[in-house]
Amino acid sequence: MDIQALKTYIKDNDEKGINDFLSPLHPSDIAKFIGELEDDEQIVVFKSLPPDIASEVLLEVAEHTREMLVSSISNAELIEVVDEMATDDAADVIAELPADEAETVLEGIGWEGGAEVIKLLKYPEDTAGGIMQTELVSVLEDATIQETIEQVQEKSEEVSNIHNVFVTDSDGRLTGVVPLEKLILTKPHLSVRDIMDPQPVKVTADTDQEDVAKVFKKYDIVALAVVDTKGKLLGRITIDDVMDVVEEEIFEDFYKMASLNTDERVLDSASRSFRLRAPWLLLNLATAFLAASVVKVFENTIQTVVTLAVFMPVVAGMGGNAATQTITVVVRGIALGELEFRHAKRVLLNQVMVGFANGVLTGAAAVIVAHIFGISYAIGILLFLAMIANLMIAGFSGTVIPIILKWFKADPALSAAVFVTTCTDVGGFLSFLGLATIFLKYGYL
Amino acid sequence: MDIQALKTYIKDNDEKGINDFLSPLHPSDIAKFIGELEDDEQIVVFKSLPPDIASEVLLEVAEHTREMLVSSISNAELIEVVDEMATDDAADVIAELPADEAETVLEGIGWEGGAEVIKLLKYPEDTAGGIMQTELVSVLEDATIQETIEQVQEKSEEVSNIHNVFVTDSDGRLTGVVPLEKLILTKPHLSVRDIMDPQPVKVTADTDQEDVAKVFKKYDIVALAVVDTKGKLLGRITIDDVMDVVEEEIFEDFYKMASLNTDERVLDSASRSFRLRAPWLLLNLATAFLAASVVKVFENTIQTVVTLAVFMPVVAGMGGNAATQTITVVVRGIALGELEFRHAKRVLLNQVMVGFANGVLTGAAAVIVAHIFGISYAIGILLFLAMIANLMIAGFSGTVIPIILKWFKADPALSAAVFVTTCTDVGGFLSFLGLATIFLKYGYL
Repeated sequence: MDIQALKTYIKDNDEKGINDFLSPLHPSDIAKFIGELEDDEQIVVFKSLPPDIASEVLLEVAEHTREMLVSSISNAELIEVVDEMATDDAADVIAELPADEAETVLEGIGWEGGAEVIKLLKYPEDTAGGIMQTELVSVLEDATIQETIEQVQEKSEEVSNIHNVFVTDSDGRLTGVVPLEKLILTKPHLSVRDIMDPQPVKVTADTDQEDVAKVFKKYDIVALAVVDTKGKLLGRITIDDVMDVVEEEIFEDFYKMASLNTDERVLDSASRSFRLRAPWLLLNLATAFLAASVVKVFENTIQTVVTLAVFMPVVAGMGGNAATQTITVVVRGIALGELEFRHAKRVLLNQVMVGFANGVLTGAAAVIVAHIFGISYAIGILLFLAMIANLMIAGFSGTVIPIILKWFKADPALSAAVFVTTCTDVGGFLSFLGLATIFLKYGYL
Repeated sequence: MDIQALKTYIKDNDEKGINDFLSPLHPSDIAKFIGELEDDEQIVVFKSLPPDIASEVLLEVAEHTREMLVSSISNAELIEVVDEMATDDAADVIAELPADEAETVLEGIGWEGGAEVIKLLKYPEDTAGGIMQTELVSVLEDATIQETIEQVQEKSEEVSNIHNVFVTDSDGRLTGVVPLEKLILTKPHLSVRDIMDPQPVKVTADTDQEDVAKVFKKYDIVALAVVDTKGKLLGRITIDDVMDVVEEEIFEDFYKMASLNTDERVLDSASRSFRLRAPWLLLNLATAFLAASVVKVFENTIQTVVTLAVFMPVVAGMGGNAATQTITVVVRGIALGELEFRHAKRVLLNQVMVGFANGVLTGAAAVIVAHIFGISYAIGILLFLAMIANLMIAGFSGTVIPIILKWFKADPALSAAVFVTTCTDVGGFLSFLGLATIFLKYGYL
């Protein structure tokens, strides 16, 4: 499949060509092709899709593309597309619309669907409520297996990937769950109460989506009940939505550590990438000048022993590398729930010790290499001591800063590029040039 | 739950205390507690577990802990534990054993189970064959719904999370798939051929596990058939195994970009972390000296204008930041399949353009700030030009290096810390000090 062919069809306004090109493709592949087109081409392709395909494609494209495509079609068309979606996806799309347009679409998708979506819109999008759907199969505790099967039958059109049937009491409180395979294996006249798991795994609607993912992994389940604070069944989350969450959350950490806006994609235009990255680079520039101002303090020392300028970036850079190692391990530990506050003291001590040990090792190696460069023993000792100091600073700041950010409910991954490498740059220059100044003063250099 | 209480029970050899502590816990929580104990304590806890719990715990702990625990128990005990596992998990554990021990365990788990596991051991662990299990429900095409349900019934003990029934022809070739809910909704006397999806999603055994994860995401499925090159059904992969793959693969990229061994965990001992990180830091040290040797070439220039030493780390550091941005976007794009070779030229051009634009912006900002530091216009111009050059180098190397690595089937994420930041360090020093030397020669500085 060649994107150039598609571009030619678009240019030639060849509707049949576009259709023949797209119709054998899976919606996620169509979304991929759309990601490679110019804005106006994207709109042509999107408008050519039937509503059921368009609805799936819309959920696969990048967020900024979705906004653009949604605004390119009429409200009537948008209603048709949203009508094809499950409630959770519909809520996501509608949440991004301006208020008056959202209202029109909600009215358009009809009384029942609209009401369900309005309920979902109340929940923050990164919570269980925000990712759940209201489509599910539930029965009362005293239903028979036969009645339950009939209920599955009735809902099978509307609910995709049923996986299991939820059981509630007459107040709507969740009391059990029955996997489909158990339904198959049980005699029709028995009560669902006899075969249900009376301790269903569940989360409340305000549970953070990262914690929802952890529940899925822990219990190896494919669907999870969402309840309110009184235990009433509100909806369910299926594993395909959680897969997206897991991937999204990890890549967000990744991006934040690299000073990137989480919505940037590799095929974005240069001007978009420039705009998204520029503020971060300006922030980094500010911290770079902070480090430079430390060097400036020692200008006289460098003037006296110019070789210091050769080795000072080595100390700062190695600190940056060691800090990146520490922060990556710590951020991963926090993300996966392996690192909790009660471990903080132990992990901090460990990381500083690792910094010390690696400082001794790389410091010694640096002295040997520097010797080959033909430097004096005094500078060798300087290099050795400064390396140890800076790798300990790396272990300390790489552990403490993400943990403090987590403590203040900020994102631990945000810390890497900005805060921690500032610590190791400043720490590296300060320790190396500071020690050099002392050495000079006492005539050792 | 307090880990100190558990440690006290272990020290006091209080078996009842240990049991009372562990028995209400989920296996994954037990694995978490084990991760926080010393080696000898881990063994005591592990040995206290009944085989079915021990088998689940073994699959949740870190790899090096698993090796240690497995070697701490007798072959007879190990056989009991492995016997509780699904074939895919059993194969993973057995693959890590020494050859003679592996043979003993394979014999121990009996003729049928052992034979299935031996088949799985042939596949590399990061392929579909390596993560599939042989437990599944399959029927012939001419089976009735009633017969299919009976088959589900018969296998329901042995196969957990059935999800769907696979349909094969008499040669064992996969010809269809039937989700469980369809079985419920269909009259018992119909043939399975009438209701099956005749184009089941499938992968061959040698498919890379990353591509397997992409198939799951694309088709929103919870179980996937694995076939041989002739289309014969070999096994199936369930989504819970894929969730682990997705998480693992992303974090591996993360780790490699930060120069970390992929098996390091945040609660590892300091000595283990030290050993795992040391080789990477020594490699980084080598590249740091490469950059230092560039500075050394310009020692005379720095001696003449010492202010250059103050600003050269700014140019190098900003290049490093910009390169990390580019490489992170590129590595993510490759991992998610958004970036393919056919996009390479366009992405390269974009990234170099983004580098140019951000170079102009941050270069101009740097000149203003440097002006506040009281530097000359000549150094300001130097800073401006070198920043542009180095940010373009960052865009170029941050795109080209991971793509080349991918081309040679190496891991694109490996490139970040080692190769790319070397480019921007060398590029930063070379452009800034090189230009300065030229300026000096012509008397502009």
